[in-house]
Amino acid sequence: MSLVKEVLIESRDRFGARETIDYVIGEERIGFYLNGEKLLSVMSVPQDQDAHIVGFLLSEGVIKDISEIKSIAIAEDGLAVYLEANIDESARQNLFREKTLTSGCCVGVTGNVEDKIAREFLTSDYKIAIGVLLDCVEAFARKTALFDKTGCVHRAALILESGEIFDAEDIGRHNAIDKAIGRARLKGFDPSRSALLTTGRLSMEMAMKCVMHRVPIVVSKAAVTFQGIKAAQEYGVTMAGFARNGRIGVYTHSGRIVS
Amino acid sequence: MSLVKEVLIESRDRFGARETIDYVIGEERIGFYLNGEKLLSVMSVPQDQDAHIVGFLLSEGVIKDISEIKSIAIAEDGLAVYLEANIDESARQNLFREKTLTSGCCVGVTGNVEDKIAREFLTSDYKIAIGVLLDCVEAFARKTALFDKTGCVHRAALILESGEIFDAEDIGRHNAIDKAIGRARLKGFDPSRSALLTTGRLSMEMAMKCVMHRVPIVVSKAAVTFQGIKAAQEYGVTMAGFARNGRIGVYTHSGRIVS
Repeated sequence: MSLVKEVLIESRDRFGARETIDYVIGEERIGFYLNGEKLLSVMSVPQDQDAHIVGFLLSEGVIKDISEIKSIAIAEDGLAVYLEANIDESARQNLFREKTLTSGCCVGVTGNVEDKIAREFLTSDYKIAIGVLLDCVEAFARKTALFDKTGCVHRAALILESGEIFDAEDIGRHNAIDKAIGRARLKGFDPSRSALLTTGRLSMEMAMKCVMHRVPIVVSKAAVTFQGIKAAQEYGVTMAGFARNGRIGVYTHSGRIVS
Repeated sequence: MSLVKEVLIESRDRFGARETIDYVIGEERIGFYLNGEKLLSVMSVPQDQDAHIVGFLLSEGVIKDISEIKSIAIAEDGLAVYLEANIDESARQNLFREKTLTSGCCVGVTGNVEDKIAREFLTSDYKIAIGVLLDCVEAFARKTALFDKTGCVHRAALILESGEIFDAEDIGRHNAIDKAIGRARLKGFDPSRSALLTTGRLSMEMAMKCVMHRVPIVVSKAAVTFQGIKAAQEYGVTMAGFARNGRIGVYTHSGRIVS
């Protein structure tokens, strides 16, 4: 399935109109099936569906560990992904407990984790040198083909201390993070010594995703919100924003970023 | 309640660190109560809560018309809004029918409208001159105090043919639209001869909001998605994106924008 669709548009200004070809992102409604039942749908770019469902279910505490997964299959048309796993039933029900429209707009999920799922303060003693982190930020800032063509995707990259990088793009900032971390988890990597880079704003859900996956450091090229800072502060996540022009603003737990 | 929070951060680069003051958006979890019952919560900037709930419930078809509203009250702390109205019970239940994580990330709502609520093709014969529209786009592009300070808000403005403008800002692009249109509806204005400007991407939910409120034209300074174009095409919404530098790209029903 093509991720980018070609459309004919009218480009208009004060002086007239001309027809031109434009490229837009082709998001789709993708069904997440868990143990044979439809769990929910997600508007998403149809790639990395397996990493997406794994990252999402781990983010929400529905799967406690990657070892609980028995099988994953993606439908041939890419519009459904089927996962069989041992799950935490109360966490699954928690997805449907209270509707919270998150800052992404809509009925949130990770936001629900807060009161219901046991989380531990992140105590990772992982440290990263500011020079290394800024090098990663610069590499991350380079545009990708998908963004270049559509101007309409968020991106996330999980950078492990061991040097592996898992990156993903999606129309949604939450999806991109779930996909990047999900891919790393699927491949058996432990994110507890890593930094997550993202193009999206860091609100509370992002801090909670880091907590659930034990990612100690998250850096965005965009802004940070007050609830994001509060959650990062409370759970030991190093949170930084406005990563650009060789500089980052560190809002919480700055000790993990060393000279 | 202050919408902007002052925080102390460490600004870091390769050469060192300095402490500096930063301003972040103070979003809150706001409870929407309908006829005495909690409907859902929304992560949002605590202003225009009354316009927000009205815009949202009309977007979702839960309220069919502004005349169905009996009363609205905002809690003193700003964290809850209470609305009493005659509602469409099946549309209310539809909110909780299927979870769709929208491109905003999360469990969507407007996305559900598609199959369940009768909509009509937008037949508004409203037309706007390209020069007038570009003037509006330029005025809209000027930064606001809230964006300037936090770099973290979306904005929407509903511009009526009669000259009234209703604008709103929020951390969420969906919220900003619901607030702007909601304010116009609360004041008794009919959006069927208007254009909606927004800073957010135009995905399917945005087209559906236009359909539900009979807004014939929507223009974003950001990108348009394929599902957004499909929905706009199907329901008669004039959709344009990448409004910048005196130019817009018109994806659907361009006849409403005249020379």
